[in-house]
Amino acid sequence: MSKILPDSVQKLIDEFGKLPGIGPKTASRLVFYLLTKSNTDIESLGESVTNLKKNLVYCQECFNIAEQSPCNICADPKREKNTVMVVEEPLDVVALSKTSYNGLYHVLGGVISPIDGVGPEQLRVAELIAKLKEEKFDEMILATDPSLEGEATAMYIAKLVEKDKIKIKVTRIARGLPVGGDLEYADEITLTRALEGRNAY
Amino acid sequence: MSKILPDSVQKLIDEFGKLPGIGPKTASRLVFYLLTKSNTDIESLGESVTNLKKNLVYCQECFNIAEQSPCNICADPKREKNTVMVVEEPLDVVALSKTSYNGLYHVLGGVISPIDGVGPEQLRVAELIAKLKEEKFDEMILATDPSLEGEATAMYIAKLVEKDKIKIKVTRIARGLPVGGDLEYADEITLTRALEGRNAY
Repeated sequence: MSKILPDSVQKLIDEFGKLPGIGPKTASRLVFYLLTKSNTDIESLGESVTNLKKNLVYCQECFNIAEQSPCNICADPKREKNTVMVVEEPLDVVALSKTSYNGLYHVLGGVISPIDGVGPEQLRVAELIAKLKEEKFDEMILATDPSLEGEATAMYIAKLVEKDKIKIKVTRIARGLPVGGDLEYADEITLTRALEGRNAY
Repeated sequence: MSKILPDSVQKLIDEFGKLPGIGPKTASRLVFYLLTKSNTDIESLGESVTNLKKNLVYCQECFNIAEQSPCNICADPKREKNTVMVVEEPLDVVALSKTSYNGLYHVLGGVISPIDGVGPEQLRVAELIAKLKEEKFDEMILATDPSLEGEATAMYIAKLVEKDKIKIKVTRIARGLPVGGDLEYADEITLTRALEGRNAY
């Protein structure tokens, strides 16, 4: 059979197909969309990909990705330095930055997940404990995902703090009904959590 | 507010967000996935994007994208040269190449769509008619999409052939129930077409 697609087209379809959530059909659609764009637009995208990791470092304070260490958040004088929020990934910082939270972050770089071979050593747990031991913080908010692994990681960190007798208020973000959600469709674990975490009205 | 994301990360999120079907959330997810990949992988993707259009030409026979003109399909001696299938886009050729069809193609480069300002002049219609006038083909299969615009474009081409008194058998791909589909969920237009196009059994 004669080759249907030019090499450069097939290669980019293959490359796009490696990205999460992008199957071969979507990859083709993206590539053929790009083919309708100007050379300038295509080169702009290509350069953005190639330059993605250039000049990127991990902030040595919070371990978020950044252009320099300390990062903009850690170096910001307007931020409250007495609270640290522990999150899994840099994307969590992006999401939380849209709230009114104005303290510092600590990015673990993942969650404890024995099935994926990720233990506390693979995460920035030792660095977190070292920071906490300096006792500069009044409160640590555990903001790992409300998933099995996220809960286990939060619990693991809380126990370490207790074991090391670090003086700090440890809190966990509330689990409950999402705003705009529908009570009758909520699962029983979420409902149980929403009841447990009920507040005075 | 302090800048949350490094410039290179934000830039690639913006670039990915311009692609069809990729919103800002998906774009972020893709970029943060890429951040976990090696520099080699990232550069490979970047180069594939940059090189996408290099060495690409339109085949001057069928107007498909190709590495040289005539393209592999038009130049293939094993293909039947007496049938031409008219399609909208290069992706349609990819889809049809998985069938047993072994003739030639003609890629229009779109469909007639007055609302988008696309008339026959913007498409490869004149080139098609010129080819047909050489009367090398026994049959032309109109394989534009079974959409409003696709049907109108097919009808427009069929009328041109009639007006120019070109001797060729003009056919249209069958509209009917998709294989594996469920009759009770089919819309009435598809059902009407399926009845109209019924075959001896």
